[in-house]
Amino acid sequence: MPRYKLTLEYDGGPFVGWQRQENGPSVQGAVEDAVKALTGAPAHVYAAGRTDAGVHAVAMTAHADIEKDFDSDVVRDAVNFHLKPAPIAVLAAEQVDDDFHARFSCIRRAYEYRIINRRAPLALERGRAWRIGQQIDAEAMHGAAQCLVGLHDFSTFRSVHCQSKSPVKTLDEISVSRAGEDVVLRCAARSFLHHQVRSIAGSLAEVGRGKWRARDLEGALEAKSRDACGPVAPPDGLYFLRADYEKS
Amino acid sequence: MPRYKLTLEYDGGPFVGWQRQENGPSVQGAVEDAVKALTGAPAHVYAAGRTDAGVHAVAMTAHADIEKDFDSDVVRDAVNFHLKPAPIAVLAAEQVDDDFHARFSCIRRAYEYRIINRRAPLALERGRAWRIGQQIDAEAMHGAAQCLVGLHDFSTFRSVHCQSKSPVKTLDEISVSRAGEDVVLRCAARSFLHHQVRSIAGSLAEVGRGKWRARDLEGALEAKSRDACGPVAPPDGLYFLRADYEKS
Repeated sequence: MPRYKLTLEYDGGPFVGWQRQENGPSVQGAVEDAVKALTGAPAHVYAAGRTDAGVHAVAMTAHADIEKDFDSDVVRDAVNFHLKPAPIAVLAAEQVDDDFHARFSCIRRAYEYRIINRRAPLALERGRAWRIGQQIDAEAMHGAAQCLVGLHDFSTFRSVHCQSKSPVKTLDEISVSRAGEDVVLRCAARSFLHHQVRSIAGSLAEVGRGKWRARDLEGALEAKSRDACGPVAPPDGLYFLRADYEKS
Repeated sequence: MPRYKLTLEYDGGPFVGWQRQENGPSVQGAVEDAVKALTGAPAHVYAAGRTDAGVHAVAMTAHADIEKDFDSDVVRDAVNFHLKPAPIAVLAAEQVDDDFHARFSCIRRAYEYRIINRRAPLALERGRAWRIGQQIDAEAMHGAAQCLVGLHDFSTFRSVHCQSKSPVKTLDEISVSRAGEDVVLRCAARSFLHHQVRSIAGSLAEVGRGKWRARDLEGALEAKSRDACGPVAPPDGLYFLRADYEKS
């Protein structure tokens, strides 16, 4: 049965998250239903990252097995047709080997966290960014964040609901930059813990506000305790940017 | 009575347009109601541009007379408070002279029209851009658009409902540029006719698709007839960018 790799863009606002759940519409459920509408058979769709409620994707990678040997562009267009009116779009579809797995084959994931640093509420970017009214220092945030790079026990930045076997992860890179009122945090790693990016974003915001110094962030990391974490940033600003795989 | 200049950002999606109307919620109505909630007195709010249903503003200038002599920041924050939950934000408020008029004092208006040129439907930018599936040539659009610069009879690019006394206007500048799948048209003039930017955007899209040549756009302008216009572009991609005033 041919396997298709799907690149998905979605607005996480109306969903309970990626994962199919009883309590509301999920991105996974919408995509599985759209694939089923195309093939007539129940479908399972797996993603590189299981984003939370309200978290968006610029380019999430997923895969699905589809009984018929469709042209990739047909899969893209037909799934998009059946996805309407959900705010989910298949940007690209591509036939891949049977051993490709969107989640388990992924060797690197990248996220972006968008902050709009201004006094006024958000109108155009409502639900798409975290507004911080108080002036924040993006350079200080960038500098402080560098202590997180490398292999660490990230227990501080991990939700109590995290199902990962180990809190020890390698953060490959993290940066914070400002362009006008937009402050953007980007980070990449093989894998992330549950709420890790939002926990880091919220803690870095404390640095940006001047409530924490770089040393305090380092201390929070070293504490290896959830209690040491800053306030968790809201889902609105978080975007799954990209999943990378070994060249096949 | 002190006059305040207000800089507004709004998502035009849920509104019938700027102007207060019987048939649904308007941006003007929402702002007037918010000012009234602050002062207790009926308010009139005037804007530099009366945007249509679904058209957005990055920074619309408006003005209102407010009985009390509030600090500008208080006006900004209080009007924002009363605007909730409408997707309208006062970015800035500033006390101005009595003879300042957001519409009549404006010497230059700038608009942006956003196209996303890709096959897949829009998820994150739904309602915020015009998706064109067929590959369009932004350079050809930019080149063709230059014939519109200067003083012309823009009857071709004018809605039949336009209330302007004359179809003769001066377009100061127009540009079309591409960054990846984003194609952006920007233009500025002292004033615009009703549907002028959307009519130009739709006609330029015909050039981008290769259905029109630059010569056809020139012919359409010279025809001075609504019949010569290309399909009018949807409101979703249009943003009021900025209103300029003489330094006072």
